[in-house]
Amino acid sequence: MPHVKLELDQCEHLIKNGDWAALLRAIQDMDPADTADLLEALDAKDRERLFKLLDSETASEVLVELDAPFVDDVVDDMPTDKLADLADRMAPDDAVRILTDLDDEEKSAEVLAGMKASGDVSGMMRYGCDSAGQLMTTEVFSMAADCPIRQVREALVNYEPTDPVFYVYAIDAETGKLLGLASVKAVFTAGLNATLRDALERDYVHCHVNEDQEHVAHKFRKYDVWVMPVVDENHRLVGRITADDIMDVLHEEADEDLAAMVGAPDIERDEDSPFAIARLRFPWLMVTMAAGLVNSIIIKSLLQVTANATLAIFVPAIMAMGGNTGMQSSAVTIRGIALGQRAYNRLGGLIVKEVSAGLLMGLACGMISGSVIWLFLTVTGADTGTLNAVRLGITVGAAMFCSMGFASSFGAFVPMTLNRLGIDPAVAAGPFVTTSNDLSASLIYFSVCFFMLRS
Amino acid sequence: MPHVKLELDQCEHLIKNGDWAALLRAIQDMDPADTADLLEALDAKDRERLFKLLDSETASEVLVELDAPFVDDVVDDMPTDKLADLADRMAPDDAVRILTDLDDEEKSAEVLAGMKASGDVSGMMRYGCDSAGQLMTTEVFSMAADCPIRQVREALVNYEPTDPVFYVYAIDAETGKLLGLASVKAVFTAGLNATLRDALERDYVHCHVNEDQEHVAHKFRKYDVWVMPVVDENHRLVGRITADDIMDVLHEEADEDLAAMVGAPDIERDEDSPFAIARLRFPWLMVTMAAGLVNSIIIKSLLQVTANATLAIFVPAIMAMGGNTGMQSSAVTIRGIALGQRAYNRLGGLIVKEVSAGLLMGLACGMISGSVIWLFLTVTGADTGTLNAVRLGITVGAAMFCSMGFASSFGAFVPMTLNRLGIDPAVAAGPFVTTSNDLSASLIYFSVCFFMLRS
Repeated sequence: MPHVKLELDQCEHLIKNGDWAALLRAIQDMDPADTADLLEALDAKDRERLFKLLDSETASEVLVELDAPFVDDVVDDMPTDKLADLADRMAPDDAVRILTDLDDEEKSAEVLAGMKASGDVSGMMRYGCDSAGQLMTTEVFSMAADCPIRQVREALVNYEPTDPVFYVYAIDAETGKLLGLASVKAVFTAGLNATLRDALERDYVHCHVNEDQEHVAHKFRKYDVWVMPVVDENHRLVGRITADDIMDVLHEEADEDLAAMVGAPDIERDEDSPFAIARLRFPWLMVTMAAGLVNSIIIKSLLQVTANATLAIFVPAIMAMGGNTGMQSSAVTIRGIALGQRAYNRLGGLIVKEVSAGLLMGLACGMISGSVIWLFLTVTGADTGTLNAVRLGITVGAAMFCSMGFASSFGAFVPMTLNRLGIDPAVAAGPFVTTSNDLSASLIYFSVCFFMLRS
Repeated sequence: MPHVKLELDQCEHLIKNGDWAALLRAIQDMDPADTADLLEALDAKDRERLFKLLDSETASEVLVELDAPFVDDVVDDMPTDKLADLADRMAPDDAVRILTDLDDEEKSAEVLAGMKASGDVSGMMRYGCDSAGQLMTTEVFSMAADCPIRQVREALVNYEPTDPVFYVYAIDAETGKLLGLASVKAVFTAGLNATLRDALERDYVHCHVNEDQEHVAHKFRKYDVWVMPVVDENHRLVGRITADDIMDVLHEEADEDLAAMVGAPDIERDEDSPFAIARLRFPWLMVTMAAGLVNSIIIKSLLQVTANATLAIFVPAIMAMGGNTGMQSSAVTIRGIALGQRAYNRLGGLIVKEVSAGLLMGLACGMISGSVIWLFLTVTGADTGTLNAVRLGITVGAAMFCSMGFASSFGAFVPMTLNRLGIDPAVAAGPFVTTSNDLSASLIYFSVCFFMLRS
């Protein structure tokens, strides 16, 4: 039957009345994921109090479901041995995540030392951040390939893992190499004289323990698998990754990309104060402000050199067009790289295409806006100083064309270069491209004006 | 063993030499997903030729793996009966996807009519777009709950589905309602005198056939499940959704969000010509251009009213700050809504928080930039016309403060309002918010200047 779920206001009502016993009874019937949601919605004080009242089993399950920023919150003043006990009750991959989520590395090491079953966990913590090794669980059901099927069945019946088991992995008894996998159904439907080897699918997708999680996620999506064995450099089975971990990765990466694009770090959480949020978002705003002031200087010079105030009124239009064009081409490039859509493709071609598209759009927009400006200035009979309406229209149109062409190539070029250098393209490209485009747009406009005035 | 994979240049080499036989032999050993990648990377002519040469079984598997824009390409001039044959070989959910991907609705209806097993497919096509009903497969293994376990095992042994089976669903024989599910392992490890009912997990997560796919994806992530039964309004089992479909949904939604944010439609594909790309991205550029020209008029009026050209040079800085602030708060709000992070939360609180953060950032940025401008103008001894350096600094700082405060509230308000109105917040918020912020920033600046001059 569907899960019971306590609403936030009911929960707050119980807390207000001090009826913790009723609250804990209600939580007993809830899914840990719902309890975690509830805890996240409570204010910090109530959250800590409620979490402390949970029994160890529930606390361990709920802790796994909490979003990273809240983990530190609830375990902050928890004794090391209590936390080690909670970690011992988790699947190894969950314990690794909780330990890496802790801000205090010393505490994390103490908890690890205090765990009874720390072997798998400390092994996994040695793998790189965001690698398959940290994502996998070491809880795999594997047997020698030559095992009689009857023996496999018996072992399977007695196997009681944390997560449901759907595949049996077959190992070469001599080399320890992974040979293939058999579904539980295949194990139970094979003939009685068969060995595990006879029930195997040998055509399986696997990943390497050092493979990047984003790359593993791409494989999951591409080959439509739900579970993937993880092997070491000798093709020995070391763990498995399941679809639920991958769904979290996909969610996380999308969040990170978007956050990087707009310069709003995704580590914000609902209970952060406006002041904390402002501080997190401030760095890019400072860069933008600095660029904006440099821009003011450029425009000031433009006015001084040309002695034509009318030129200044078109700066925002040219900047906005360059900015959008650059944003579009960088977003398309970043997504393309991140999702491996360009697996079979040469990236050089992409730049050429983005530049061509940018120049085409620039040509159209430049011609349209130039004509509109000429028409407008002529109809209103505005004072255009040293430039007549036709030349002013041509100047603005040409500047728009140049800045859009530049922005589209720059927007494609930066993420691709970062990617080649091994830097996540999304992290640096957004703010960097936007600010550069703002500055380049006014510099280009300045140059075009200067050229038009001279000739 | 790992999959064989033909590289693009090898493939192009074979095509150039006209060695189609060798190419088809290589494809026989490849995973359909890799073949689809290869087809997508080829140019349109070669793609169509190669696809036509595939045998029906392979063609059907590859078609399922092709990205939406390419589906139309390869089946464009394929006879209806051939296409119906391919669709007949697919799982019902894949057939639905292919049929909905076709641009030509008439052709889609003809293909459906020509299918031998069109029952499930036409049933599913009646469900809403992006609903669980269109995402699910009707291929489920269900039996009456009172069935002896021996009988369930026999049926399971003889069951040969397209996708692997991991759960048996138990149905109430009288009402047809879904009672629970049993893992294959539970079926094979239950006692011989048991019925299916004894092996059931009754505590399962399900979804409704009309539920939105994004909501279903959220449930998958939250409850860490790999397969979810889909029920109708009477809680009767109508299908199941698997993790691989959900991974596609997560990917798709993230892509759509990002594309909407920057006004670059995600239906672009590698082989689109720069002209086609330009046309797709043009709408938002036209909006931006119109706004830019309106902005020019506002600045022109500002110059006329104040007769102070120096005021114009700060417009880009104020606009960039407002733009970034709005982008940050709209991105955070959109992601928050899309991912259901605010499930337990009141959205009103979010607006208050975003506005407060915006005002705080505006206060800091306004004060800093105002001081910098005052200092700069004083040191360089620039001509500031009717306003002295102090008042000019205050004017720019105040305008920045106001426009950032407005932008942050507007950036949070628009997606939330759209969401309440049942419109996808990501689709309209990006371009709309950016353009509005550009315009509002210069209007605010105009008003502040006007006010400062009058007093």
